Amino acid sequence: MDSYLIQVNGHRDHAAMLDVHLKTNGNSIPLGKVKGWKPRWAVRASEMSKKTFNPVRAIVDSMKVEPNPKKAMISLSLGDPTVFGNLPTNDEVTWAMKEVLDSGSCNGYAPSVGYQSCREAVAVYYTCPEAPLEAQDVILTSGCSQAIELALAVLANPGQNILVPRPGFSLYKTLALSMGIEVKLYNLLKYPEKAWEIDLKHLESLVDEKTACLIVNNPSNPCGSVFSKRHLQKILAVASRQCVPILADEIYGDMVFTDCKFKPIATLSTDVPVLSCGGLAKRWLVPGWRMGWILIHDRRDIFGNEIRDGLVRLSQRILGPCTLVQGALERILHRTPPEFYHNTLSILKSNADLCYTALSAIPGLRPVWPDGAMYLMVEIEMEHFPEFENDVEFTERLISEQSVFCLPATCFEYPNFFCVVITVPEEMILEACSHIQEFCEMHYQRAEGAQDLECDK
Amino acid sequence: MDSYLIQVNGHRDHAAMLDVHLKTNGNSIPLGKVKGWKPRWAVRASEMSKKTFNPVRAIVDSMKVEPNPKKAMISLSLGDPTVFGNLPTNDEVTWAMKEVLDSGSCNGYAPSVGYQSCREAVAVYYTCPEAPLEAQDVILTSGCSQAIELALAVLANPGQNILVPRPGFSLYKTLALSMGIEVKLYNLLKYPEKAWEIDLKHLESLVDEKTACLIVNNPSNPCGSVFSKRHLQKILAVASRQCVPILADEIYGDMVFTDCKFKPIATLSTDVPVLSCGGLAKRWLVPGWRMGWILIHDRRDIFGNEIRDGLVRLSQRILGPCTLVQGALERILHRTPPEFYHNTLSILKSNADLCYTALSAIPGLRPVWPDGAMYLMVEIEMEHFPEFENDVEFTERLISEQSVFCLPATCFEYPNFFCVVITVPEEMILEACSHIQEFCEMHYQRAEGAQDLECDK
Ligand SMILES: Cc1ncc(COP(=O)(O)O)c(C=O)c1O
Ligand SMILES: Cc1ncc(COP(=O)(O)O)c(C=O)c1O
Repeated sequence: MDSYLIQVNGHRDHAAMLDVHLKTNGNSIPLGKVKGWKPRWAVRASEMSKKTFNPVRAIVDSMKVEPNPKKAMISLSLGDPTVFGNLPTNDEVTWAMKEVLDSGSCNGYAPSVGYQSCREAVAVYYTCPEAPLEAQDVILTSGCSQAIELALAVLANPGQNILVPRPGFSLYKTLALSMGIEVKLYNLLKYPEKAWEIDLKHLESLVDEKTACLIVNNPSNPCGSVFSKRHLQKILAVASRQCVPILADEIYGDMVFTDCKFKPIATLSTDVPVLSCGGLAKRWLVPGWRMGWILIHDRRDIFGNEIRDGLVRLSQRILGPCTLVQGALERILHRTPPEFYHNTLSILKSNADLCYTALSAIPGLRPVWPDGAMYLMVEIEMEHFPEFENDVEFTERLISEQSVFCLPATCFEYPNFFCVVITVPEEMILEACSHIQEFCEMHYQRAEGAQDLECDK
Repeated sequence: MDSYLIQVNGHRDHAAMLDVHLKTNGNSIPLGKVKGWKPRWAVRASEMSKKTFNPVRAIVDSMKVEPNPKKAMISLSLGDPTVFGNLPTNDEVTWAMKEVLDSGSCNGYAPSVGYQSCREAVAVYYTCPEAPLEAQDVILTSGCSQAIELALAVLANPGQNILVPRPGFSLYKTLALSMGIEVKLYNLLKYPEKAWEIDLKHLESLVDEKTACLIVNNPSNPCGSVFSKRHLQKILAVASRQCVPILADEIYGDMVFTDCKFKPIATLSTDVPVLSCGGLAKRWLVPGWRMGWILIHDRRDIFGNEIRDGLVRLSQRILGPCTLVQGALERILHRTPPEFYHNTLSILKSNADLCYTALSAIPGLRPVWPDGAMYLMVEIEMEHFPEFENDVEFTERLISEQSVFCLPATCFEYPNFFCVVITVPEEMILEACSHIQEFCEMHYQRAEGAQDLECDK
């Protein structure tokens, strides 16, 4: 099976995007009823399709570079833990699917929000006294991506705005802009002092009467940060004061590999309503299966039936996720052995260690220790690499010279960093790091005032 | 596994939809920046979620009736061939899935438009000299529903209109209205003379400069009609003259059980560009698996890269269908034995015969013979049932008295008919028909001028 590789030399999907084949008046929104109008072919793509803009693809596709033919390409850019085969899913997960297939009982349509029994299984798995869940609080979706899409679509009208972390996962902006929803980026505070915590003052300053929701992504892609209970409480205090509901992207929930513990934000909320989005993709290592969910937490009945009903209606557009995966869900959640999760996390932690240690030793780079998820951010001390304009150029050259592909953090609205995934096998991490080292040593230049900078380290 | 049953007494999902829990100013679109604005909780569902309106659900949910407790409920309303177990999918289909599961090779992300090899497999399956297809002409989607959603989303802007058959499948309108696209209904000509052919004059009269596409559903849900080659050519002539691209919903393609043959409309087009939507749901009897596709036919390069690129962008919102089903697709398409399709069709034909014959004998009903798909339309001679206001009331009372549930064709914008599915097992069809007969005999009244009407039959 061909696997998903972000093409480095671009133009796989977007060839000649701007070619116009048609005589048109240059106006893709048709004019009002025109007298003497004569039909002619002028099929243009909709505004919405044009506004559906994936910055990662746009940046990556515009990187017109070929890897160094003398070195095998190593890609540290894909948030897909399955590509290298070192992180297979658990056998229970596969068996659960086979059981469903054999039964022949899950081939028909499910309700568009999911089988009742599967919503129940998710509710039972995630319920807790501080944030109780029942089947009716669970909406099954086609991946966490669709969970986020539905949550945004039900909460925000065109012209409203949402609050999105910077750095942050690009899908929020892609979806919002395609729906005509404005994006306001709130800052995460820089490591290491603040461990990517939210700049709460900045966050609060952005709220206005058009703010439809606050997106909190914890654990974070791309930062690998995990918020403390106290910090989550402070975020909730802002949301409560400003009366802004929370869209919690918790797809990396429980994927924490140091001492800190993951707390679902809804377990700390007393009033703020929360739509928590999650799925099987990351923790169960089956992103292709497209199983996600929205957990509706609304103890004060602020969402009420209106939001619930809206989610049901929206789910009827494409009728929910694959019923086979739905049918297997209860068994997947309840029978996957704890060792499986531990094993994944210990591999991630060991890779994080390896990568962090290797990159820390490289002149001009400052890796940031992650506590969870699958990523590690690396600051590029740009003043030491005057040859390169920015992180995009830095990573571009890293490909053409060393055949190592890291995602420039401009993809996350955070220039001068790059991001590496830590799901890659050990030997590849080591090899990639040694190529990065060679690259940096080649291009590093002692900047003026360099001694001060060295002391900061 | 709980299966999907349309609830007759409504209010499963839509309980207290109109309850408002919040102090609001009654305006769900927020006002501009207001001086002295103070935050308060006023979370309202978006306009889009409110505009996402499924007429079938709305009508069915508002039918507040209980079945007759003395008779077991028989539902002839569900377009799901799997509910009764009489139409299982083929073993090759299940085996193909198991092979993929065992290989562990399809757990990761695919490109959002589908694995290249699977797009290729679909292209190879559907290509023909008159309408050649390559992998790049295939977009894999989460069911035919998402295929239709993406096709509409790429072709039409808010404020434009689309042409939709009446009677017709309700999803077109649901999707269009939710996107702010206007729906213009074109008439199908009444049986038996015209066999539900399109009223081409009416169709052409509806086209204006804001018309973004023409939806052609063939074979038809709910009519069960199959267009002849000649009729398809005439439809294409209108589209060509008016320069309107076609969205062909061909999910029931090849599901034809009489002498006529299914012709994909793209095979007859010389200029009109066609997005043909299909999927595994009906012909392979696995609707829950959510595998659909768009086939892009554009021999004159009228869509050009713009529409292709738009589809790619839109697909990135939720990242395509389940990779397991994708991985199995080639084998499903190429190894399912021909006997399987024949067997399905012969069951459908035999059920259609049974149902048609039984209903033809009932006073006041006029069934319409179907040539394909899975449905049969029945005209209610309302003048003989003066007790009932319309088809909704007729079918409502049929439930409360006889525990037989047929979909009132008001769901398809076509009053005074009801629709039955012919995927139900023989004995249930017979029992249902005998209950319908009892019901009609009970309520039938010879209308004035009845003799003339009788002669018409
Ligand atoms: C933060 C975050 N949210 C959501 C998603 C999407 O998850 P899914 O593959 O289930 O759609 C991803 C995938 O990388 C992610 O990193
Ligand atoms: C005419 C028509 N188009 C599309 C669909 C949707 O198909 P899918 O289940 O693949 O989304 C249906 C389902 O009943 C249908 O009848």
